[in-house]
Amino acid sequence: MKAYRGYMIDLDGTMYRGAQRIEAASDFVKRLRSKGIPYLFVTNNSTRTPAQVAEKLSSYDIPAEEDHVFTSSLATASFIAAEKQGASVYMIGEEGLRSAIRDKGLIPGAEDADYVVVGLDTALTYEKLAVACLAVRNGARFLSTNSDLALPTERGMLPANGAITAVISASTGVKPTFIGKPESIIMEQALKVLGTSKDETIMVGDYYETDILAGMNAGLDTLLVHTGVTTRELLANYPRNPTYAIDSLDQWNV
Amino acid sequence: MKAYRGYMIDLDGTMYRGAQRIEAASDFVKRLRSKGIPYLFVTNNSTRTPAQVAEKLSSYDIPAEEDHVFTSSLATASFIAAEKQGASVYMIGEEGLRSAIRDKGLIPGAEDADYVVVGLDTALTYEKLAVACLAVRNGARFLSTNSDLALPTERGMLPANGAITAVISASTGVKPTFIGKPESIIMEQALKVLGTSKDETIMVGDYYETDILAGMNAGLDTLLVHTGVTTRELLANYPRNPTYAIDSLDQWNV
Repeated sequence: MKAYRGYMIDLDGTMYRGAQRIEAASDFVKRLRSKGIPYLFVTNNSTRTPAQVAEKLSSYDIPAEEDHVFTSSLATASFIAAEKQGASVYMIGEEGLRSAIRDKGLIPGAEDADYVVVGLDTALTYEKLAVACLAVRNGARFLSTNSDLALPTERGMLPANGAITAVISASTGVKPTFIGKPESIIMEQALKVLGTSKDETIMVGDYYETDILAGMNAGLDTLLVHTGVTTRELLANYPRNPTYAIDSLDQWNV
Repeated sequence: MKAYRGYMIDLDGTMYRGAQRIEAASDFVKRLRSKGIPYLFVTNNSTRTPAQVAEKLSSYDIPAEEDHVFTSSLATASFIAAEKQGASVYMIGEEGLRSAIRDKGLIPGAEDADYVVVGLDTALTYEKLAVACLAVRNGARFLSTNSDLALPTERGMLPANGAITAVISASTGVKPTFIGKPESIIMEQALKVLGTSKDETIMVGDYYETDILAGMNAGLDTLLVHTGVTTRELLANYPRNPTYAIDSLDQWNV
């Protein structure tokens, strides 16, 4: 096993399971911290700010400050700012996306916006979808924080951002650019934040189709931990294996 | 030209264009009425009741009572009642769908409903989509009034019912049964209401992909009138022609 000098780490299913602590996850991050190895939590969740995510992690006894967190909202706002400084953005989303867009100096737009950005929004309305469709038909560049289709909650699987995004792509016939995992857009940005090179960095997660594919797409080694979605049995269905697969982060030496 | 004994007629683009009258349409329906030829307006619009549609037609000087109107909401409610009398239904939609479901003796349901039905709903919320997804995952039969993707309005093209329905199909992986044009479900029901046989009935409309295909799928003769979506130029792209194509209903002898 290689000694990695940078870790990218998924959240739900890897660091906790919904409201449930994962003891081995807390110990794992503490080991990284005590050895001074840089780590960054990379999440498709667009609704929370990095500070809110860090607070949640701390409540699970996982050492995390705001700058250990990289969200699909941060990645999306950075992507826009790099393409067009001061662009106008029509946004469907919550506080995490709203503050990321504002912090990058982007300005609110409507039917005439330069960009339409869709993130999960539990206050979604028909009117928000209508404005997004009009803006895309008017030529706005169409971005979506992530393509996740279903959101695990205590009520069951609810519609996630990729499903909401489908309204606009179906109605306009324009396909969005997705930013979050498994796309490499978020990973390339996260690498810059982490400050390590690809060959010394590993992506750690529980879900093959987002975390592991994101690592592979970005050319990183990958560590699948069977504490979430992709069990050992499900993994057997994929043609390409992650670099490592383990049952618990207790089995991993940093 | 055959003498048809029953007419099915589309609304927007055929009888009027948005808020604009089509003089020839009014004259055409008056000719049908004076000869005592049965006609039925067959519309994918699920939001209005037949009485509301008839009132709108009357305001364009088109002779129409409630029982001249057959909506995708009526077809959907009839479809459910025929499959399971007294079924529970979780509905996304407006007054046209709500009253059609109630009038068929179906009862309101939620996450445990027998059926999920999606019609256009400008008061759509995330919560409505969430309940629909939970019900479909719980095994509810998934219906949608129609598959239209974009709704022409004075503001531009807004998301239509097929695009809204895509949230639920994308998130759950379950494909809906569509009821409205171009499906033959609505046409078979409309034929029973009209009371004429297939070989003596013609479908009249402006849009190849809903009206003309609906007629073809149901085995009817078809009349395309170039007052709406499908122009003479666009028609040249389709491999199969309607039975007749004319520029104005003035050119048609009933």
